[in-house]
Amino acid sequence: MVVLPEIWNSPYDNAAFPLYAEDVDGGGSESAAALSAAAAANGVALVGGSIPEKAADGALFNTCLVFRPDGSLAAKHRKVHLFDIDIPGKVTFKESDTLSPGAGPTVVDPGLGVVLGLGICYDLRFPELASLSARRGAQLLVYPGAFNTTTGPAHWELLLRARAVDNQAFVAACSPARGGPDGYQAWGHSTVVDPWGVVLGTTGEGAAIVYAEVDTGEIATRRRNMPLSEQRRGDVYELIDKTG
Amino acid sequence: MVVLPEIWNSPYDNAAFPLYAEDVDGGGSESAAALSAAAAANGVALVGGSIPEKAADGALFNTCLVFRPDGSLAAKHRKVHLFDIDIPGKVTFKESDTLSPGAGPTVVDPGLGVVLGLGICYDLRFPELASLSARRGAQLLVYPGAFNTTTGPAHWELLLRARAVDNQAFVAACSPARGGPDGYQAWGHSTVVDPWGVVLGTTGEGAAIVYAEVDTGEIATRRRNMPLSEQRRGDVYELIDKTG
Repeated sequence: MVVLPEIWNSPYDNAAFPLYAEDVDGGGSESAAALSAAAAANGVALVGGSIPEKAADGALFNTCLVFRPDGSLAAKHRKVHLFDIDIPGKVTFKESDTLSPGAGPTVVDPGLGVVLGLGICYDLRFPELASLSARRGAQLLVYPGAFNTTTGPAHWELLLRARAVDNQAFVAACSPARGGPDGYQAWGHSTVVDPWGVVLGTTGEGAAIVYAEVDTGEIATRRRNMPLSEQRRGDVYELIDKTG
Repeated sequence: MVVLPEIWNSPYDNAAFPLYAEDVDGGGSESAAALSAAAAANGVALVGGSIPEKAADGALFNTCLVFRPDGSLAAKHRKVHLFDIDIPGKVTFKESDTLSPGAGPTVVDPGLGVVLGLGICYDLRFPELASLSARRGAQLLVYPGAFNTTTGPAHWELLLRARAVDNQAFVAACSPARGGPDGYQAWGHSTVVDPWGVVLGTTGEGAAIVYAEVDTGEIATRRRNMPLSEQRRGDVYELIDKTG
């Protein structure tokens, strides 16, 4: 399986999203066609990072397309939590100026015998989404994401490892490399984490490929060691899935 | 405010809990009396770690008592998630062999103008409890806890920092120092974390005091930077508090 980063076909910029947005459902997406062809040509499952998507009604989404090794589309995840933050002097961004939010979690096996739970970037900050995906059977939480040089060093690895440990699942996150000085400054540091929170592979800010082996047997071992799901207190709290 | 560690009046051992358990509600608790007197004598709020508590019906709990600076009892938190784990060759423990679980989260201002959300050790592994406490107004999540030499290096600081960042609250955790070779091997490393996930103070495995200043203004700043609570997707998921 190959994973690409968030918004790889466009600058990460509200002014750019409408210009680079593609009509996936209507069949007019050049990026979707290229991803499908690449998956099929290489016989790999492909989590195609994300692109700005333009729906039939004109609404824009930050959308991740997942392809099977035969090139067929397995799933489409639209970013559920839009990146609206304001850290004065550091980073201010408001995706909701141009984008609409997705409807919920996306859980899919792209023909590998491994179930993926998808999230995009800011989705990582909401443990509820990861919990819902894990409950629906996700073994590997995949986050195309572009944290920045303020939130990246503070929280990127921390949150990836925490989602892995809390859900006793693998986590893989793929970031764009750091851009030029005038564009959005992505943190980089694509990373894969195992269900015990161990970093299996990571990198720096530059262009790179991170390789990691995902042994799903590790999930069963860790859940046997600490049966967190069974130990949750359903009489004290309950996380309701409103989209299931 | 002063925080003590988990089970400080007894060995951490199922065989010891019934022997050291005290009747707090019935007024026969020597430890509660000592904590109350210490809080009043020093004019400090005191989160009294935890002790084995024996209820009137004979049930045992792992219980944290919180005292106001005048020595009055502000709250009692019974560990909600019992420590039942089995990592063969590393650590196996089953608190539920002797203890009963508490009824839910405990949120209290012990007369400081700062609202505490209490948890004990294994409670830390369940993000739902921290979320409920934060929603009820907790500004500082306090965990007396005794992770061990397997789970401690892997997860102690990770989970403390993750709860802080996810809830945009302070977190303080107090562990016993490492014991002698024959007893339970606590990880130590008492730690205080700010709402951005920065470790404000920590220590090693030996007996020590960790000092940290908690500026609750930092909470408002971080929640303004990233209004995570407002950005949660109530149409996608909802964490129900069944005890409120």
